[in-house]
Parts: sequence; C-alpha cells; structure tokens
Amino acid sequence: MSTKTAPKTAKGNFFEDFKVGQELVHATPRTVTEGDVALYTALTGSRFVAQSSAAFARAIGLAGAPVDDLLTFHVVFGKTVPDVSLNAVANLGYAQGRFHKLVAPGTTLSTTSTVAGLKENSNKETGTVYVRSVGRDDAGDLVLDYYRWVMVRKRDKASPAPEAVVPDLAPVVSPEFLTVPAGLDLSTFDSVLSGSPHLWDDYAVGEKIDHVDGMTIEEAEHMMATRLYQNTARVHFNQFTEKDGRFGRRLMYGGHVISLARALSFNGLGNALFIAAINGGRHAAPTFAGDTLFAWSEVKDKAEIPGRRDVGALRLRLVATKNLPAADFPESGEHVVLDFDYWVLIPRR
Amino acid sequence: MSTKTAPKTAKGNFFEDFKVGQELVHATPRTVTEGDVALYTALTGSRFVAQSSAAFARAIGLAGAPVDDLLTFHVVFGKTVPDVSLNAVANLGYAQGRFHKLVAPGTTLSTTSTVAGLKENSNKETGTVYVRSVGRDDAGDLVLDYYRWVMVRKRDKASPAPEAVVPDLAPVVSPEFLTVPAGLDLSTFDSVLSGSPHLWDDYAVGEKIDHVDGMTIEEAEHMMATRLYQNTARVHFNQFTEKDGRFGRRLMYGGHVISLARALSFNGLGNALFIAAINGGRHAAPTFAGDTLFAWSEVKDKAEIPGRRDVGALRLRLVATKNLPAADFPESGEHVVLDFDYWVLIPRR
Amino acid sequence: MSTKTAPKTAKGNFFEDFKVGQELVHATPRTVTEGDVALYTALTGSRFVAQSSAAFARAIGLAGAPVDDLLTFHVVFGKTVPDVSLNAVANLGYAQGRFHKLVAPGTTLSTTSTVAGLKENSNKETGTVYVRSVGRDDAGDLVLDYYRWVMVRKRDKASPAPEAVVPDLAPVVSPEFLTVPAGLDLSTFDSVLSGSPHLWDDYAVGEKIDHVDGMTIEEAEHMMATRLYQNTARVHFNQFTEKDGRFGRRLMYGGHVISLARALSFNGLGNALFIAAINGGRHAAPTFAGDTLFAWSEVKDKAEIPGRRDVGALRLRLVATKNLPAADFPESGEHVVLDFDYWVLIPRR
Repeated sequence: MSTKTAPKTAKGNFFEDFKVGQELVHATPRTVTEGDVALYTALTGSRFVAQSSAAFARAIGLAGAPVDDLLTFHVVFGKTVPDVSLNAVANLGYAQGRFHKLVAPGTTLSTTSTVAGLKENSNKETGTVYVRSVGRDDAGDLVLDYYRWVMVRKRDKASPAPEAVVPDLAPVVSPEFLTVPAGLDLSTFDSVLSGSPHLWDDYAVGEKIDHVDGMTIEEAEHMMATRLYQNTARVHFNQFTEKDGRFGRRLMYGGHVISLARALSFNGLGNALFIAAINGGRHAAPTFAGDTLFAWSEVKDKAEIPGRRDVGALRLRLVATKNLPAADFPESGEHVVLDFDYWVLIPRR
Repeated sequence: MSTKTAPKTAKGNFFEDFKVGQELVHATPRTVTEGDVALYTALTGSRFVAQSSAAFARAIGLAGAPVDDLLTFHVVFGKTVPDVSLNAVANLGYAQGRFHKLVAPGTTLSTTSTVAGLKENSNKETGTVYVRSVGRDDAGDLVLDYYRWVMVRKRDKASPAPEAVVPDLAPVVSPEFLTVPAGLDLSTFDSVLSGSPHLWDDYAVGEKIDHVDGMTIEEAEHMMATRLYQNTARVHFNQFTEKDGRFGRRLMYGGHVISLARALSFNGLGNALFIAAINGGRHAAPTFAGDTLFAWSEVKDKAEIPGRRDVGALRLRLVATKNLPAADFPESGEHVVLDFDYWVLIPRR
Repeated sequence: MSTKTAPKTAKGNFFEDFKVGQELVHATPRTVTEGDVALYTALTGSRFVAQSSAAFARAIGLAGAPVDDLLTFHVVFGKTVPDVSLNAVANLGYAQGRFHKLVAPGTTLSTTSTVAGLKENSNKETGTVYVRSVGRDDAGDLVLDYYRWVMVRKRDKASPAPEAVVPDLAPVVSPEFLTVPAGLDLSTFDSVLSGSPHLWDDYAVGEKIDHVDGMTIEEAEHMMATRLYQNTARVHFNQFTEKDGRFGRRLMYGGHVISLARALSFNGLGNALFIAAINGGRHAAPTFAGDTLFAWSEVKDKAEIPGRRDVGALRLRLVATKNLPAADFPESGEHVVLDFDYWVLIPRR
C-alpha cells in the first residue's frame, strides 16, 4: 500500500538531530490530580506526612497536601522521553536537579529542554546528549529543573561528529541554592503525627541507616507507574520484543526504583519531608519484576538554611539493592541497583 | 436450610426474558472522577492531550480536561452487563455509536437500554439480542448511545421462538450525525504540545499507519480495568472456574483491548482528539494476560464538518493484534484480536 | 561504621512496651480522596450504589458519595500497624466496631488507640494485646471505633508478666447503638437503580445467600490495596524474606479479604448500603495471590431502628472461602478464610 502522505509515526531523535543550544518543547502537558496521588501511594507505599495529610500540610503553612516531589519529577521527566531518549541506549546520569515550587493537585505540568552538551563516542555509533530539562506549572513558574545525560544512537555511523561540548556540572547543589517551599513553617512541627522523632539535629554526617523493609515488585505495578508518568520508553512494556532483547524481559523504569527506595527510607528518615535537590544519581544495575528492593542511606552533609531556625537540609546518599537486605550497607556489586545523592528539607529542634 | 424468602441472587436475563421494545433501566449509576481518569491513564498509557492536560483543554475552548471517550463508553457499557449479557455466549457487534457530549470528572453516568431486536438461533439454545443503550449525565443529557448485539442463552430450549426482529443498522454513521463538543475551537491548535504535527489535511484515504509500539497485559491490569468499569461479566475474574472453561483461563474484557489499541494509536494519530462515533467493531479473537498487543490503522474516509474550518473527521479502521507486530498490517488470522471502525475529530490546517 | 546518634529505624512495640490504659497517637494522618475511592473500586469491584453514585447519594439525603466504610476502616486500621502489630504473630479478633459518621472524600483521618487489655501467654514468648482504636475526621468527630486484639512477641522471655486484664467485650453490638448517617432518608429509595429489589422486609433470620461470583487475586492487587491503606505489615510485601517464612510466600492483608467478600456480597445484598457495626471477625486461614475468593452470607438477626420507618438493620454473617464455591455454605475447613459478623443498614418497604 503506497500513499504520498508523510509517515505519521514518531521515530524519536537520533544523536545527529541534536544541536547545542537547541530548545525542545515537549508534548502532552499533564494535569496532576488527586487520582495520580492515590496511585502513587498505592504503587510506592509512600507515607511522608505532608503529602499524606492535607490537615498536616495546612498545619505547617501549606495550602494543602502537595504532590510527592518524585511524582512531579517523573511526570516532568516522562515528557522528555519521546524527544530525548526514545533511541537511548542508556540513561547515564542526573545533576543539578532543583525543586523550586511545590505542586498542588490540579496543576498542569509542562516540560521544555535545552541541549546543553553533545559528545560522540569513539565507536561512532552513539553519543552522549546532555539536556537541561525544566518543568513549569500553569502560571509558567519553575517547578523543577535538572540536567540529565543519555547515550543516544546515531542514525548513521558515517555522520560527522559535532564539536564536543560537555557542560560543567556541579557534583553537588550548593545548599544556598535550595528552595524552602513558600509558606512552610516547621516551628510547631508535630513529630508524633509525622511518624518519626528524629529531626535535623539528630542526624550526624557519616551516619548510615538501614531502612530494613523490603518491597517486591510486580510487572503490573511498574508498568502502571510508568504509564501514569506517561513515560513511553519501550523497554518497560513490550515482553514480545524484550524476550529477545538484552535481558530477556521487561526492564523497570529506573525512576520508579528511586520512588520505591525513597518510600522505604521513611523508616529512618520519616521527617525528610521534601526533596530540595538532586545532586546526582546512577542506575547501577537493571531491576525486574520479581525483584525485592531494599534501601539504606548515608548522611553525606548537613546544612543550615540562611535565615531559618525551623528547617535544615540533609544531603543523603540513598542506595537501593535488589534481593539483598541492606543491613551491611552494600555499596557495590550486582545487587546494588541505585546510588542516588539528594538534599532533603527536615525540621530542626 | 429452607426459607420462604425469595432467592436474592441475580441470575441475569435469558433470551426468553427479552421483548422487542422493552426498556431496561440499568442499576448503579456511576460518578466518574479524577481518580478514575488517573487509573485509566495508568492502565492504558493514553496520552491524548485534551484528556491529559486541563490547561490544553481550556485553550481549545473546553471547561477542563474531559474524561476519555472510551472510559465513558466502558462505564456506560458496564452498567448493561448484569441485565443484558450475564448469560451471553458472545459479544457479536456494535453499530451506530455516537458520542454526544463530553463528560467532565464529577459527572454521574447512568444507562438505559431498549431491546431493538431478537432472533433465535437455529440450534434453539441461544438467540441474538439487539439493544440500543443510552448513557446520560446528571442533567439527563445524552452522552453516548450505541447498538450492540450479543448471543444470549435460552433458559429452556423448548421455549417458543419470538418473531424475528433485526434492526436495520447503518454500517457507518453518516458524518452529518457527528457532534462537535460544545465550545470546541481548534483554530489555534498547538500541534507541538499535542505531540503530533499531522492534522486532518495530512491524512489520505487508504493510508495505513503502523503504531509500532507493543503493550503486554497482566492479569492484575485487565481485572482492575474491568472492575473500574464495574463490568461484572464473570469470565474476566474467576480463574477457579475458568481453568475448566473454554480457554482454561480468564478472558480479557474486549472493551479494554479497544482502549489499549486506541492508546497505542497515539503514535501516528496523536491529534485524533475525540471519538465522535463507533461504526462497528468485532472482537476477532480472545486476548489473555501475557499477550502483547500491537495496532495499526487505516484511514477509511475523510469528512468535513458543516460550518467548521477548524475541525474535520477521519473514519478509521483500528486493527489490534496479539503477539504479532503490525508492520505488515495483518487483517486476519489468529493474531488479529480487534477490528474496530470509528470516526474521530481532528484539527484542520 | 559507628556513630553516637540514636538508631533511626522504628522497631515497633513488643509486648512489654504496652501498659493498660496507655494512649497511642498513631502517625501519618491520611486524607482520603476521590483517587483512593477509584482505586478501591478497581481493586474490589464494589458497586454499592451510594458509594458509586454522587447523584444517588444526594437523592437519599447525603451531601455526596461517601467513602466505602471498609476503605475508612482500612485507613484507620493501617495507622495502628506500626505501633500495635509490627511485631504481631497473629491478628486474633475484632469486636464492638461502630461506624459513627460517613467520610467524604477530602477528609483527613487520624487514629488513636488505648490499650484495653494485656494477657501473657503461657509460653512466656508472646502475649495478647487488646486495643480500642478510634478514627476521627478533621473536625475531631468520631468516625469509627473498634476493639482489636493481637498476639505480640515479647522482647525478652524473662520479662515479668503484667497483671492479666481482659476487657469485657460484647459479642454483638446492640442495635440501639447503631448510628444512621446524618441526613439519610431512604423513604423514596430507588431499588431499580440500586441494583437489587430486596429490602429489609424481604430477608428472614436464618436465610443463607450464596453470592455466586468468584474473584481471583493477584500479588499486584493485594499489595496495591495494602499500600493504599498505608498498612506497613511486612508479610504482605517482601517475597525475598517470605520465601523462607512460614508460608513460603507473601500473605494477603486479611482486611482486604473482608473488602472482596463484601464486594461479592453485592449479588444478594445489593441494598446493604452501609456497615453500621462490626460484631466480630476471624481470619480462619491465610489467603494468597492466585486464590479465588467466594462468599456466602447468613442473616443472623434483624432490628428496627428506633424512630425510623425508612431504614432497618440486618446482622449478617459473611463467610469467605478460597478455591471453593460457596453454594453449600461451608462453615469450616481449610477453604474457609473469613468469618465476619456485622450490622448493615438497609431500606425498608
């Protein structure tokens, strides 16, 4: 059957399609609702109190229960996939992620990205694409921005390499760039209702916490999560194709691993109310349905927030393992699936 | 244990229980909420922009993001099952389906049906029941109506056959009967945010589109979807009984196959914003958990909408396959599970 | 790695940690939303009309569709788990449960418990803890209270036994203590829309009803439900640990079995609109993914509500079986998983 019309199916961008400085306006903005929040709870088991209870949220100065920061992240991220990573071989890293404004249910999130760097690999078959992605709300306000770099296939090995540009990314977001949510007042924080007595003052740099609990993942769960985030990366959904692929099975979206590890971290970090920044993250190994996730954290740093006595910041390293309890704080090896470095906001005494 | 009370359990209607012209008022009206919408997204991966983004919906003249047309269809349809198809052997077809009014979250949908035809089969064990089902909103306004015919068991082979009445159903809804949603104005449609540059003018009659992506289905997913629609047909839920049944396993609700195929069709038909009519549909083969669905479409017709320059209609044939990619546009064979004919509304240049 | 900070992970209470009269304020209050309601529908298939349709709910005098009573129960119950039953060996029983006020979506539920009894077991390794748990809404109004007793491990076998205190619990909530929801008026009840023609007058004490339908459960479903309820009991989630445990697999939360049995009971008890009280309940055997649940009910008693002609109460025994249809009303044996005794409110003629 031949027609003269243009092909209609999106093929995604290849390495040659990206130019440094290029702006990408990503499609299908997404209104996040209370329905999405309920699904996020059901899929992750998250219990952080400000996101769980509208009454508690109001008691600490917010208008209502905000959307979980990682649900915001996944929705903003999901929008970039059709343009940035449909032809990606690997998601290599994150840096300089900052959460600027809490998202209330009912907010429409939209994402744009700027190409911040390009570097062809020596095999000439792939290259690294660096993008800075920006999520905004209905008012156009900045909600989240982060850098991400992915290895993307070239359309043609013979295409000339672009001039290599690698952005100079900070290994850690400096604490003076952390944003405290508007209105937040933790001076009368109720640490009985929050589920943990441990505040900023109680954590020591170098301290390690085993989050104890394990969570087994099913195919239906990771696929529902990834569709909820409208992340269209094909490796998560298509067993017919993946049975002949690299792993013989569907791969779980790495971002959902972050969400599950963060939810597990409630047991030990129950007052780590908000994620303020993502310093970096690495998906050390793939995760599949049937795997049981465990997690541990290390306090990497502590920072005061200028002008604030009620809230401080902890820099945390969150490590997730599969099929290996985390009591011995494993840092490497086949069981480690995630190594994530981020700042949280937590009440002070 | 004997009592004098009437049996309390509903047995459903048998062929003998239907009379031409009979009105059926179906039970348990259902308020569709943002929670249902989130689940629909998580279960299908649908990304059509007007249903995804309240901000986009407002920009095209709507009050907010409407409920997906097929979620509306499934809820309206689900209500009919206890009365019409609890004793059905097969769901035979659909015709003359029309979507009259978009549904906003918060709307309570209720369904009535009229028996439009009856024809006993020559084996005297079953007969075909034709119903016209009508979904209405809180205001009593028509939301959706369609004809459906099912093969239903007789209670008693000896019952006399009713006079055969077969309604005269149009093979295609004539385009002058398509309804454009109230308020819709696509004159400034943003095809970057919508996720596809292809508008009405770009599609040619006869053009075929492979939607490329595949989606594997899990038992938990199709059962959650079917319960969400409050469709009580037993074959979807009860493995204990179905293990000894015709297929040895639970059967997936055919309507959810339509939803998954429609969601896959975003890749190639991203601007097919609304379903205006269902011309016909056939579930060519059963689908089970573990199957991977693919889909392709053919443009069967194009129609202008009288008085409108901003929006046109495409008549599409949507074919879904299981465990067979659709690049070769398979039309028949054991892998074809759905052959669906419908009209969509799509912006014009 | 050693630090001087306190351990951060919650270990739960052991038998020695409880004192009669002790007040427990449970953490992470939970705002129940329309999203939770949609998930409850998708996970249970419940169709009771007042919870399904806001329009119907308004027609019987309510402000809108209330949250299912058992969703309320599970959320209130889930809050108690980290404090009461993290180290529990078995959930032994419920008594004197009363539903005082319907919950509207948007309500924040919080739970407190009082220790009502303690009794060490003769093996000195465990003891029974009796708690009265109380769920309240934003306004501080009582929503639900119930007694529950669980067998909890001792930290140390050598710890002295406390004085044995066993509360005197009524085997049945006396009907004069049943609360009719504020505003409810069933005098013009529409039993066509409700899905059942059978009202209070039509049921006889001693009558048994087979609910006919079966529902097979998947791992993803019971885990999503249990996370939705923020119930953190570990046996439900962690296959890595449970594969070496007592059953070799994850155990389904017994409360979700109640929900599924109640949803199945719609077929025969479709007008049992609200649960007014829980007289008692016993999880007779564990339920696992892959099991198919069936249910039957017996009418144990009927009661008039003082001053009301529109509504009466039925005391029901709800028995759920796994992998055994309930046509013969099985009362015991390995297939019986639940024996639940409760009062419902149902319209009168």
